[in-house]
Amino acid sequence: MSHGSEPARFAWRHPAGESTVVCGVGALRAALPALAEWVAGRALFFLSTPRVRGLHLESVAELRRSAARVIDLDVPEGEAAKSLEWAERLWREMVVAGGRRDSRMICFGGGSVGDLGGFVAATFLRGIEVTQLPTTLLAQVDASIGGKTAIDLPEAKNSVGVFHHPAFVVADAAWLRTLPREEVRSGLVEALKMGILAAPLLFERIERDLPALLDGQAEALAPVVEAAARAKATIVEGDPGESGSRQLLNLGHTLGHALETALGYGGLRHGEAVGWGIVLAARLAERLGLLAAVDGERIRRLLGRFDLPVWPAALASGELLEVMGRDKKAVESGLRWVLPERIGGARHGVSVPADVVDEELSALAVAARSRLPAGELPHI
Amino acid sequence: MSHGSEPARFAWRHPAGESTVVCGVGALRAALPALAEWVAGRALFFLSTPRVRGLHLESVAELRRSAARVIDLDVPEGEAAKSLEWAERLWREMVVAGGRRDSRMICFGGGSVGDLGGFVAATFLRGIEVTQLPTTLLAQVDASIGGKTAIDLPEAKNSVGVFHHPAFVVADAAWLRTLPREEVRSGLVEALKMGILAAPLLFERIERDLPALLDGQAEALAPVVEAAARAKATIVEGDPGESGSRQLLNLGHTLGHALETALGYGGLRHGEAVGWGIVLAARLAERLGLLAAVDGERIRRLLGRFDLPVWPAALASGELLEVMGRDKKAVESGLRWVLPERIGGARHGVSVPADVVDEELSALAVAARSRLPAGELPHI
Repeated sequence: MSHGSEPARFAWRHPAGESTVVCGVGALRAALPALAEWVAGRALFFLSTPRVRGLHLESVAELRRSAARVIDLDVPEGEAAKSLEWAERLWREMVVAGGRRDSRMICFGGGSVGDLGGFVAATFLRGIEVTQLPTTLLAQVDASIGGKTAIDLPEAKNSVGVFHHPAFVVADAAWLRTLPREEVRSGLVEALKMGILAAPLLFERIERDLPALLDGQAEALAPVVEAAARAKATIVEGDPGESGSRQLLNLGHTLGHALETALGYGGLRHGEAVGWGIVLAARLAERLGLLAAVDGERIRRLLGRFDLPVWPAALASGELLEVMGRDKKAVESGLRWVLPERIGGARHGVSVPADVVDEELSALAVAARSRLPAGELPHI
Repeated sequence: MSHGSEPARFAWRHPAGESTVVCGVGALRAALPALAEWVAGRALFFLSTPRVRGLHLESVAELRRSAARVIDLDVPEGEAAKSLEWAERLWREMVVAGGRRDSRMICFGGGSVGDLGGFVAATFLRGIEVTQLPTTLLAQVDASIGGKTAIDLPEAKNSVGVFHHPAFVVADAAWLRTLPREEVRSGLVEALKMGILAAPLLFERIERDLPALLDGQAEALAPVVEAAARAKATIVEGDPGESGSRQLLNLGHTLGHALETALGYGGLRHGEAVGWGIVLAARLAERLGLLAAVDGERIRRLLGRFDLPVWPAALASGELLEVMGRDKKAVESGLRWVLPERIGGARHGVSVPADVVDEELSALAVAARSRLPAGELPHI
């Protein structure tokens, strides 16, 4: 593991080839020769948002000059971009601009830009190659790794998409310096999730460096990004189609997605919702005797220091239960849970008795509405 | 090769596994045990058109009874179904109906139903398994084999899609008995294309049996379907991502697609347009010294017996040239042609001087407008 001093480079293999990740402070400079060759002589669709362009366009100027021509595509910030309307607008702009099968796509922005752009690239002329330049912590540690792409339907988030692995993921820590504190916190939850699942040293690093991390210090964040991205790449490589161990990555996401759906897009940030989901998963794991109380307490205590936003009082547990039942990861035979077994290991496909879910979710809802002080969370 | 007496079974391998083809008279009955197991205990989305249901629903009744539940999805006949609007409608119906990742999709109809349904299945929750039950000759010999899926944009046909290989393709020759003669002719052109590319015995069979084939006799068509589908499966298996030899399958499609685009959807049937494209390709191959005149003449003579519809007088060669330049199979460096080298072999990626294309296309346009008697076609 590098220590923020120089960029790290690694890869994950998948059925269509290999995806190269370069991350850390100075990652873009380190990746530039390979990226320049990748776009040379080709039309480059450069997808971003006005805000990201305003902050960081200068950093990609040399890369853009390496393409035969650049067609700029702009979408709004956040989940609003992940609609069929935006996908259609991009596809049509790309046809009109003379896009071909050997054209390239670069997604420069957060997870929504990457999800939408990845989907549009995957489906344009049955697939053009894509590179992800994730600018948010959430996208750097999680969304950009693994080849998932998606858009939303009004009825359900991420319900339309495919697997389409990027040629490169270049996650420069310099882009993280301009992130709002809430965005950093949201991304750190996904890094913490990777620590709980598969990387105990990453968990310890987050415990130790939390203040500097929440402050958005690039040098502190770089090794966290690297460790989380490496851990995710390893899991993805072992299960490209999400039929097995990759389901571990859904730790905290059953409740997390339900909270996002129930509160509407924008109600809670993704990482915030997943944070509450991890608290629930740890409680369920303890109730089933899968997780030692001391580890459950350690998880809750660390998440307590994240100071996650409260839930609206109007949100009923019954509604959340119903939304969870519609989760796309459910199967005909019912919900399956990912539950931690220790700091650094988890199990997927676990059935939990409905009354236990109901009880723990209700207790969590009470605590989450009032945002008990961090020290109190272990007792919910 | 079977002789129409009993169904044939073969498979093509691809990066995600294997696709099984069962074809011939009685194919559905032969495939029923495997299909019934494939849908058992699952939600089955059954996509078709009112016309196909009206003609053939009884034949699939037992298969439908094997699923835990059947959700019927209906789309219009033909290319009109291959729109983003229809894809969206289906995705949303599938979410509302509680579709999950272990749900199944069956496409029962012609190439448009298969293209649209394959695309919707490929992208629903990042992919559910699909089986193709092609009911037209075109779909049985060509569209259902190889995992291509697509919808159209107003600007270009098949411009949005992915590769998504079916679990099964079951092509029952009984469904061909109700096809209009023009549909049979259109499908036979694609079978003939496979003969020219890779299957000289198939070419000879079509030469020999043409009257019975054009009459839609299921027993005559069954071995043609089998030979064409086998040849296509072999090519697809060797090149799943269409980066190499699979491009051979585009023989006749450069002009074919341009004719379809220029005349608007519905102007010429796909196979009819491809037929004219094969005539052009044979002429270009002769001009470049790739194809012996005797083989070119044999190709044109057989296609002459198909009695392809004429082109509208208003259609200018210049317009066709321009549309061909926008073909999604073009690369930044220009159009590449697939040209026959003999009966049973072809070459892809061939550059043809612009003046030669211009000259031969203009000569063909004159002949195609007046539909010279079949015997005259060799002299255009």
